[in-house]
Amino acid sequence: MMSSIIPSKSTLPVRRKVKHILASDESIVGDKVVVKGWVRTVREQKSFAFIEVTDGSCLKGLQIVAPVDIESYSEVKKLVTGCSVAIEGKVAESLGQGQKFEIQADKVELIGECPGDTYPLQKKKTSMEFLREKAHLRPRTNTIAAVARVRSALAYATHSFFQGEGFLYLQTPLITASDCEGAGEMFRVTTLPSEIKKLPVTAEGQIDYSKDFFGAPAFLTVSGQLSAETHACALGDVYTFGPTFRAENSQTTRHLAEFNMIEPEMAFADLQDDMDNAERFVKHVIKHILEHCREDLDFFQKFYDKTLLERLGKVVSEPFARVEYKDAISMLQQEIKKNPSKWQYSNVEFGTDLQTEHERWLSEKQFNSATFVFNYPKKIKAFYMRDNEDGQTVAAMDLLVPGVGELIGGSQREERLDVLVKKMEELNLKPEDYWWYLDLRRFGSVPHSGYGLGFERLVCYATGIENIRDAIAFPRYPGRAEF
Amino acid sequence: MMSSIIPSKSTLPVRRKVKHILASDESIVGDKVVVKGWVRTVREQKSFAFIEVTDGSCLKGLQIVAPVDIESYSEVKKLVTGCSVAIEGKVAESLGQGQKFEIQADKVELIGECPGDTYPLQKKKTSMEFLREKAHLRPRTNTIAAVARVRSALAYATHSFFQGEGFLYLQTPLITASDCEGAGEMFRVTTLPSEIKKLPVTAEGQIDYSKDFFGAPAFLTVSGQLSAETHACALGDVYTFGPTFRAENSQTTRHLAEFNMIEPEMAFADLQDDMDNAERFVKHVIKHILEHCREDLDFFQKFYDKTLLERLGKVVSEPFARVEYKDAISMLQQEIKKNPSKWQYSNVEFGTDLQTEHERWLSEKQFNSATFVFNYPKKIKAFYMRDNEDGQTVAAMDLLVPGVGELIGGSQREERLDVLVKKMEELNLKPEDYWWYLDLRRFGSVPHSGYGLGFERLVCYATGIENIRDAIAFPRYPGRAEF
Repeated sequence: MMSSIIPSKSTLPVRRKVKHILASDESIVGDKVVVKGWVRTVREQKSFAFIEVTDGSCLKGLQIVAPVDIESYSEVKKLVTGCSVAIEGKVAESLGQGQKFEIQADKVELIGECPGDTYPLQKKKTSMEFLREKAHLRPRTNTIAAVARVRSALAYATHSFFQGEGFLYLQTPLITASDCEGAGEMFRVTTLPSEIKKLPVTAEGQIDYSKDFFGAPAFLTVSGQLSAETHACALGDVYTFGPTFRAENSQTTRHLAEFNMIEPEMAFADLQDDMDNAERFVKHVIKHILEHCREDLDFFQKFYDKTLLERLGKVVSEPFARVEYKDAISMLQQEIKKNPSKWQYSNVEFGTDLQTEHERWLSEKQFNSATFVFNYPKKIKAFYMRDNEDGQTVAAMDLLVPGVGELIGGSQREERLDVLVKKMEELNLKPEDYWWYLDLRRFGSVPHSGYGLGFERLVCYATGIENIRDAIAFPRYPGRAEF
Repeated sequence: MMSSIIPSKSTLPVRRKVKHILASDESIVGDKVVVKGWVRTVREQKSFAFIEVTDGSCLKGLQIVAPVDIESYSEVKKLVTGCSVAIEGKVAESLGQGQKFEIQADKVELIGECPGDTYPLQKKKTSMEFLREKAHLRPRTNTIAAVARVRSALAYATHSFFQGEGFLYLQTPLITASDCEGAGEMFRVTTLPSEIKKLPVTAEGQIDYSKDFFGAPAFLTVSGQLSAETHACALGDVYTFGPTFRAENSQTTRHLAEFNMIEPEMAFADLQDDMDNAERFVKHVIKHILEHCREDLDFFQKFYDKTLLERLGKVVSEPFARVEYKDAISMLQQEIKKNPSKWQYSNVEFGTDLQTEHERWLSEKQFNSATFVFNYPKKIKAFYMRDNEDGQTVAAMDLLVPGVGELIGGSQREERLDVLVKKMEELNLKPEDYWWYLDLRRFGSVPHSGYGLGFERLVCYATGIENIRDAIAFPRYPGRAEF
């Protein structure tokens, strides 16, 4: 039997990632290592060649010095941008600028070629639009690779924050027979045939979805919130983090048909607890990337957003402002009065749905800080938000951040059965469609609150990247589901 | 401006979760606390009542002792199973069995009632089938709550493992215009109308999906692997963890229409690296729950699987067996020869797709250990797996575990452009449909490997829960997409 068990491979010297070599202390000098990655540039000199190699582990490439007298120098001759290589050599202190260490190569091996005449990433500068057409190759660029690293760090920080606060991670279903918010255009999910003649039809000339896979019309969810409430009302504090969908025919830089949402839901929590948690969350994840992704953030600061580090630093160190909606309206009215023509939407009153220009003025000018606006008019918010005593407003909050506008939307949920049913009826929602959601209010109902945060917006906010299509690996929008 | 900023709430005494109280040391005795949760049981005695309260933070409930002479004892009179409460009181050492601490209540508040005549979770024992019909309430049961906690811990351990090994988390798209594996029945995603007359039709009588949201037929993905390869071939090591879909009309205890997959993908890694990583991964996540979920695992051991802790302990402490497929076939042939009638599938030869009975015999009897079977016949594996030199097999591996069978499937990917194109053509796949996948082999191709693990199977394996529908919050299967 032993013969069929393969012993662990012993590869000497060990492969090291570029990130680890560059982050090492001096003790690494002299170590024999193998580096594997892709060639960024090759410059041949008289007695050696400089090869810059990246393996995706960090922004910076590693400088390889390959003397012409090594046996494999013929391989060096074949290297071009984009090809893959394995380099064996010794770590040395670098005399060149901008790097602490370099590799003095003993052996260079070309692994995969990269024909320069067809490789789409040849040119130094390529537009973000062009790169979206090459979404399978664009993580090889500095910008998209840096986005991927920061995004991954933000995702991990999301989990570590909630787990640290005692929340349970919950994966809510994506396919659903219920339209969660009674709002938003949804994608239908079906296995019915695409041949018209074979489609089952009702007497009314509609496709008969009772014959479909789930025995009922089924859609892709627009939010995990209502499902998450079922678990908060049993397990206390839970959070979701996963895909949600909107079938909106929108071609903006702020919308995707498929995006990721973080949706915490907390039992025995009111709106203030909700804002407290959201503030701690945002501070935690931004602090995490400031500590772990500094090189990438410096890159974004340099090339995408000169105010990035200052902005992120402020978020971590300063308390967020909190203002009631009605007071925010007064502030806006006073400001608009000074010069109404400066505003696209100068008519602001109680009941106005705040526009991005209003949100940005509040967070950028009035408070110069991340800002919660709370207690919104009932009329402009969803049915599940808790009515306040004033009869006019609900316990809802939005978090507005400089440069982006709305980052988070949340609320205390209406936990009183009679009030909730009345609110649903006012909006022509059928309580029987929400029987299980109402059960949460029938059996051991508790005050509870939660919020939703669009993860790709957070990525944009944290990097200064402007278009949300560049904040996700393979963006989906009208006309685009390739790769 | 200050007036609109609400100061942080100061609530004294502080709310404490049951888990924290029960896990405290003696110093907590005498502390004034608030506990909020749901009533499990109430037993009135002569001079006081015992109330057991749970808040979902751990399996055990907290014992509350409410003397009849407290002012709010009238509230205690109203308490029944399932209602929600807030209890104010002092932590005391418990004289009762099975708990270290209890609360001597000063104040009891009924928050949400729970009418006993309609509450579905009244009965002590309810079947798992019944609970699936009440999936919105079942996290209030011991079993489903324990599953939710172990599941959350496994998810977090997944992230901490890969992040610790320097992998980047990648969210691959769920809506896709490409059938990733050229296999598996897929769900269609559409926004076309459901009225037959309004459907756009091609000359061939098919629904015209060029008029659909994405301008092409679009589906829910069956795997993120091919997308993940694009990022591994740029960033090195990546992993996905998210939903995948199979539109199979399957009503087994092992299949779901919507489930979650973990799919790591590693550049510069061969099949042995792949198995090494998979082994470290499984050991890491099981070790994590043994350390963090012991109370829940004890519960599963007691009520669901008497061998659970022994099984999990072995996974962590012993190396996994590794056997070539051809040797596994020989072993099976020898064993079957002894008593062919014991086997449902007694005809086993090179080329046989192993059945669950074979997989379980290998891992449970032959090796008595988690077991990798590798180098499978080319014919029974997917096109993207790397051809071995023998011309017969591919560098594929499955991880078989006692009690469950296949837990992981992985492979080294075919990185040679010419070989891959030939393999696709043999299977009548059109290389032009995979232009972007082939680009990875055209430009700086590297050896790379990865695997896929069905997360709900891992949850079953780690808890002893038998039906995969109980390992996920809201299971989706034919006929079922409610909640």
